[in-house]
Amino acid sequence: MVDNPLPFTDTVAALPAAVPFVGPETLQRRRGAPFRARLGANESAFGVSPKAEAAMREAAADVAWYGDAESWELKQALAEAHGVPTEAIVIGAGIDGLLGVLVRAIVEPGTPVVTSHGAYPTFNYHVNGHGGRLEFVPYRDDREDWRGLAARAEAVSAPLVYFSNPDNPMGTWWPAAEVQQLIAAIPEGRILVLDEAYCDFAPPEALPPIDVTDRRVVRMRTFSKAHGMAGARIAYAITHPEIVTAFNKIRNHFEVNRMAQAGALASFHDAAFIRRVVEEVERGRQDYYATAARLGLKAIPSATNFVAIDMGRDGDYARAILSALQEDGVFIRMPGVAPLDRCIRVSVGRPEERAILDQALEAAIARVG
Amino acid sequence: MVDNPLPFTDTVAALPAAVPFVGPETLQRRRGAPFRARLGANESAFGVSPKAEAAMREAAADVAWYGDAESWELKQALAEAHGVPTEAIVIGAGIDGLLGVLVRAIVEPGTPVVTSHGAYPTFNYHVNGHGGRLEFVPYRDDREDWRGLAARAEAVSAPLVYFSNPDNPMGTWWPAAEVQQLIAAIPEGRILVLDEAYCDFAPPEALPPIDVTDRRVVRMRTFSKAHGMAGARIAYAITHPEIVTAFNKIRNHFEVNRMAQAGALASFHDAAFIRRVVEEVERGRQDYYATAARLGLKAIPSATNFVAIDMGRDGDYARAILSALQEDGVFIRMPGVAPLDRCIRVSVGRPEERAILDQALEAAIARVG
Repeated sequence: MVDNPLPFTDTVAALPAAVPFVGPETLQRRRGAPFRARLGANESAFGVSPKAEAAMREAAADVAWYGDAESWELKQALAEAHGVPTEAIVIGAGIDGLLGVLVRAIVEPGTPVVTSHGAYPTFNYHVNGHGGRLEFVPYRDDREDWRGLAARAEAVSAPLVYFSNPDNPMGTWWPAAEVQQLIAAIPEGRILVLDEAYCDFAPPEALPPIDVTDRRVVRMRTFSKAHGMAGARIAYAITHPEIVTAFNKIRNHFEVNRMAQAGALASFHDAAFIRRVVEEVERGRQDYYATAARLGLKAIPSATNFVAIDMGRDGDYARAILSALQEDGVFIRMPGVAPLDRCIRVSVGRPEERAILDQALEAAIARVG
Repeated sequence: MVDNPLPFTDTVAALPAAVPFVGPETLQRRRGAPFRARLGANESAFGVSPKAEAAMREAAADVAWYGDAESWELKQALAEAHGVPTEAIVIGAGIDGLLGVLVRAIVEPGTPVVTSHGAYPTFNYHVNGHGGRLEFVPYRDDREDWRGLAARAEAVSAPLVYFSNPDNPMGTWWPAAEVQQLIAAIPEGRILVLDEAYCDFAPPEALPPIDVTDRRVVRMRTFSKAHGMAGARIAYAITHPEIVTAFNKIRNHFEVNRMAQAGALASFHDAAFIRRVVEEVERGRQDYYATAARLGLKAIPSATNFVAIDMGRDGDYARAILSALQEDGVFIRMPGVAPLDRCIRVSVGRPEERAILDQALEAAIARVG
């Protein structure tokens, strides 16, 4: 490459300089003013457990020490609660980080990887970043089409399949029995990532029993959503110990922040706090359903901490609504591809933020016309 | 791979299940008791700036929000201080994380990569993790041999060369003029990583001027050492904006902890604190030199926050001393390869920890015999 004297791999040289998400701080800098409601990143509006906050504040005094590379205490607590050996758990700096490690372990240039068209962009970012070939299966009735995913994975011999339950960005979900049928359709020697970032908000019947003797499934859970610790960057995968070994061969062993480890452990033990958050989120979903109904729109029933609202027209219209909301100081996001992009996606805020959304959405509709 | 039904790449499947470092918490669990002096990981014994601690405690309340994906405020402050555009800086979760991204951008199976034999193991871990071919150049007189590195890089056409100044694990350093000769010896289209993790402890004449118009150099700096924030996981690279663009194509954009960003910014502005830490570290090095002299050993003059003490015999002897110290509750580390492994490496502790080391080392020598 004569005109680009840099020694990057063909894969990296060919990548666009795109990011999976433009962050709200970046958007605020562009518009020159802060948002009055931050409802776009599915962060928790109900903060972190006071016990977790206290644990993090205490840990700040010891931040000169690297965090435990094994996150042993947290891993033990999680293992006990999930009824699995500690060897079946790996802690990472968020599901984004764990997805990156798993993709790197499996995907080489040209490797086929199956996901839903419009599902989590950061997974796609990692696959593209390793030169993988994404095979997209359309949503069906606003749900990830597990039958379609299984069929496409079989057809292209994909070693890696992504499925989130509950789903982001639509908020829909499948009962455990269907998820288990998807797992059953994955042949030995291939891996299904079951992204359960939103599982705390889902009905229990969405979650199949955990079976870490199954080498075909990697389940991912996070402290970023119900636990209100997105900024701490801590999550975990539950899977067969042989797959954990692969993570340990390439992951950044000291990457998990010491305060995050302390906070996550405290939060995990504060079940009462999480229960209250989940109840608040349920109230928030109801508010958004009511807003949609009031404005003659259809909200898609959600099992997450956000609601997709069908704006009833095409993607250009929904994008115009999103822009109008941002200009009005309300940060939301929306699905990236048709037909999902007829919707906007609104994270559950505090009651006052929900009231802002209710008014701002009505105004945006009037303004966009 | 019939007997291993997992879809990992050949590179990952072939990797050993080894870790670059066994962490002190793991060692404590193995011995069943805490260490009385933690002097092995080159962490700061002098803690974090009170201003940084306050900033992190305050940020703990907002941890439900993802950190700024661009770490904009921190990047601006760093750019201004270094006299470079913000586009010449990328923030990452520690130098370990930044090295991982850079290696991934350049190294494919078989790519030759040059480093010193016995230099930073985590760099080697990343290179091995991408199937690169490490080409080792021996140290010369306990310093990284920059002439040898340049010659080997030329001989094997290595697109990536690692050089740390000051060096870890020996603590030695080269003046800027020699570093600049090394840079001059790197052809266009190849990259030298200049790991300056310990630069805060070095004489200013060790640091060449920063030139981000040079596409051949990536300089890495961290908040883990003098700033006492190892557990926060935050560091940065300064380089040509085109190389920053490559980082941005594949890095995990939301990986940097929100509290770490706030703490690093506050710490960066607390120059008086850092100056006191550097002075304390200088006193600590003198104490270790005195301990070595008292025990008839040679300490290697250090420009870092640790001192390599030449135990005067072979690697087996130094390893026996290290084990004896660990049994006695004193955590240290040592170089991994001959002839460096005649030394132990002791991080500067607080005065009471230095006194413990002084006594424990004498006792270990007596016990090992």
